[in-house]
Amino acid sequence: MQKIYRELRVDLGERSYPIVIGSGLMGGYDLSPYVAGTQVMIVTNETVAPLYLDSAKASFPGKSVDVVVLPDGEKYKEWQTLNRIFDALLENRHTRKTTIAALGGGVIGDMAGFAAACYQRGVPFIQMPTTLLSQVDSSVGGKTGINHPLGKNMVGAFHQPQAVLIDTDTLKTLPPREVSAGLAEVIKYGLIRDEPFLGWLEGNMQALLDLDPEAQAEAIFRSCRCKADVVALDEKEGGLRAILNLGHTFGHAIETHAGYGNWLHGEAVGTGMMMAADLSVREGCITAVERDRAVDLIRRARLPDMAPAGMSQARFMDLMAVDKKNVDGSLRLVLLKSLGEAYVTGDASPDSLRATLQAFIH
Amino acid sequence: MQKIYRELRVDLGERSYPIVIGSGLMGGYDLSPYVAGTQVMIVTNETVAPLYLDSAKASFPGKSVDVVVLPDGEKYKEWQTLNRIFDALLENRHTRKTTIAALGGGVIGDMAGFAAACYQRGVPFIQMPTTLLSQVDSSVGGKTGINHPLGKNMVGAFHQPQAVLIDTDTLKTLPPREVSAGLAEVIKYGLIRDEPFLGWLEGNMQALLDLDPEAQAEAIFRSCRCKADVVALDEKEGGLRAILNLGHTFGHAIETHAGYGNWLHGEAVGTGMMMAADLSVREGCITAVERDRAVDLIRRARLPDMAPAGMSQARFMDLMAVDKKNVDGSLRLVLLKSLGEAYVTGDASPDSLRATLQAFIH
Repeated sequence: MQKIYRELRVDLGERSYPIVIGSGLMGGYDLSPYVAGTQVMIVTNETVAPLYLDSAKASFPGKSVDVVVLPDGEKYKEWQTLNRIFDALLENRHTRKTTIAALGGGVIGDMAGFAAACYQRGVPFIQMPTTLLSQVDSSVGGKTGINHPLGKNMVGAFHQPQAVLIDTDTLKTLPPREVSAGLAEVIKYGLIRDEPFLGWLEGNMQALLDLDPEAQAEAIFRSCRCKADVVALDEKEGGLRAILNLGHTFGHAIETHAGYGNWLHGEAVGTGMMMAADLSVREGCITAVERDRAVDLIRRARLPDMAPAGMSQARFMDLMAVDKKNVDGSLRLVLLKSLGEAYVTGDASPDSLRATLQAFIH
Repeated sequence: MQKIYRELRVDLGERSYPIVIGSGLMGGYDLSPYVAGTQVMIVTNETVAPLYLDSAKASFPGKSVDVVVLPDGEKYKEWQTLNRIFDALLENRHTRKTTIAALGGGVIGDMAGFAAACYQRGVPFIQMPTTLLSQVDSSVGGKTGINHPLGKNMVGAFHQPQAVLIDTDTLKTLPPREVSAGLAEVIKYGLIRDEPFLGWLEGNMQALLDLDPEAQAEAIFRSCRCKADVVALDEKEGGLRAILNLGHTFGHAIETHAGYGNWLHGEAVGTGMMMAADLSVREGCITAVERDRAVDLIRRARLPDMAPAGMSQARFMDLMAVDKKNVDGSLRLVLLKSLGEAYVTGDASPDSLRATLQAFIH
């Protein structure tokens, strides 16, 4: 198979790494130059393993490759499942020169990355994301972690990968609901930093839903470029990087309320971005027309436009109070200054916030 | 109470921090300049809390201090107990501007430090060690983590504290067995890097066992200075820092075999250092007279000089095979080039190793 790919770099000094995007890369692109030692542990799940494990192994010629297959789903993004990675590493005597490879979606990437951050106090890892959401977002930037019953991603580490390998062919097997969830994060980049990309998305949304390979590759490339730029400017979220959380404060509350895995992360972020756009209107930043443009695009990606049935204002407030962005008890939110420009604020008016919550609950 | 203290610095660029050593410091030394936000979570255990929690709190004037009290013991250095720290942080809505303070021995320091490394992907922490072992070793250098059933400290992070506060008064309540365990690590510094200190220890061992405050303060100061020097030269154990593990490969095997907590870490390290000295003779590095000098000093600290009853050579080899220092299947050991100089080797002869194991098993 012909390998056509594009390469980006995440510029983080000695921790810089490439993102390779294209078709036929799983098994067709040699990752062994990114493996310092002789051992590789591929972390994957029951859904992905039958589809891509054999070709993923072929990307590590000359290395000793072990595999741990985890159950599939956000509800397994917790300590017990993480510990199975440590079990596999220790049972197979992986030393601190091992490399961990994450083959799967965001849950696998976050867990494998966190395992790499913690195993023997830190070993290298490689991201091989197989879902649109993980390809455009979670595989880039080094955020890793697991959930806690009281909050999503509350336990984790910043740990950058050695390389990110994005084979767009893996999207052919992705369920439509997961395609939509990934598109939520794609739209996010347009909303927070790239107004021209919003226009491109409006013209290509149908092609993306139809899994057109060229449209997909372009959307992934532009998304990763935006994420790489933001991460290079603010690796550990001292400031700017927080804008990548547009819609996520509302979204995390929805996910936690619904129970991890009942709403996909991207679905919750889609609704959350609508809420952030709505609050941005109430705060006098964008116009109702601009909000409607954002809401329409998110709807066209077939994402939900209301909070889960039965989720109250009080429940939202309670769950949002534990968000990682909060400082000394004050709620911090990402809002839109305009379409294509986001900012972080701790000063949203409580009245506006209540009105927005009211508009999106049943 | 008069506060007399000495201060050292661990020199790690922007992550440098002070070690303050003296009497009357718990509650008598203001740590609030090392707390960036308003929230502090003191992590301690059931044994230490009744003795020092009130005075520890007094070291954070003007801050909002919460407390989590864990059960006492090495066997609790695992995920379930660690998770109680995350529970307390989330239940009390600690943000990523919180500071975690470890009040207790090495187990508390390692767990509180690892919780700080992982909570919301990393928050600052302060060490307030209350045992001799943690004061001279584990509180300095940023190694944090928990145990895994298949190996000690297998899951963790490098995470440097903001400050280390060592109040030597806390040693007055320390059980004699724990004093001895701490002395093992004190003797270690003499063996690996400071021959004159070995001579000083030979002259002052009885004073240290008698809890003489001036002898204690001197031993702690010289130990911390040695550790700080080594950590500053090699923070993440790329090379030199591994010498701090003298006796630890044997010792970790003993601890794992005995079940965490049945042998104290320092006790296992004491026997392990005797074994390392013995192997160093067999490898032609030090003389039998030098070995006996080391063994005698360790014995005088009232540390065990044989492996646990029933622990076989095969069991040693099996447990040592998962040591973090190993590279691609080869066992790496810290040996003595001379008294006062250690080195790391992957080349110890299997015959010598078997003879040393044979000499220390029942």
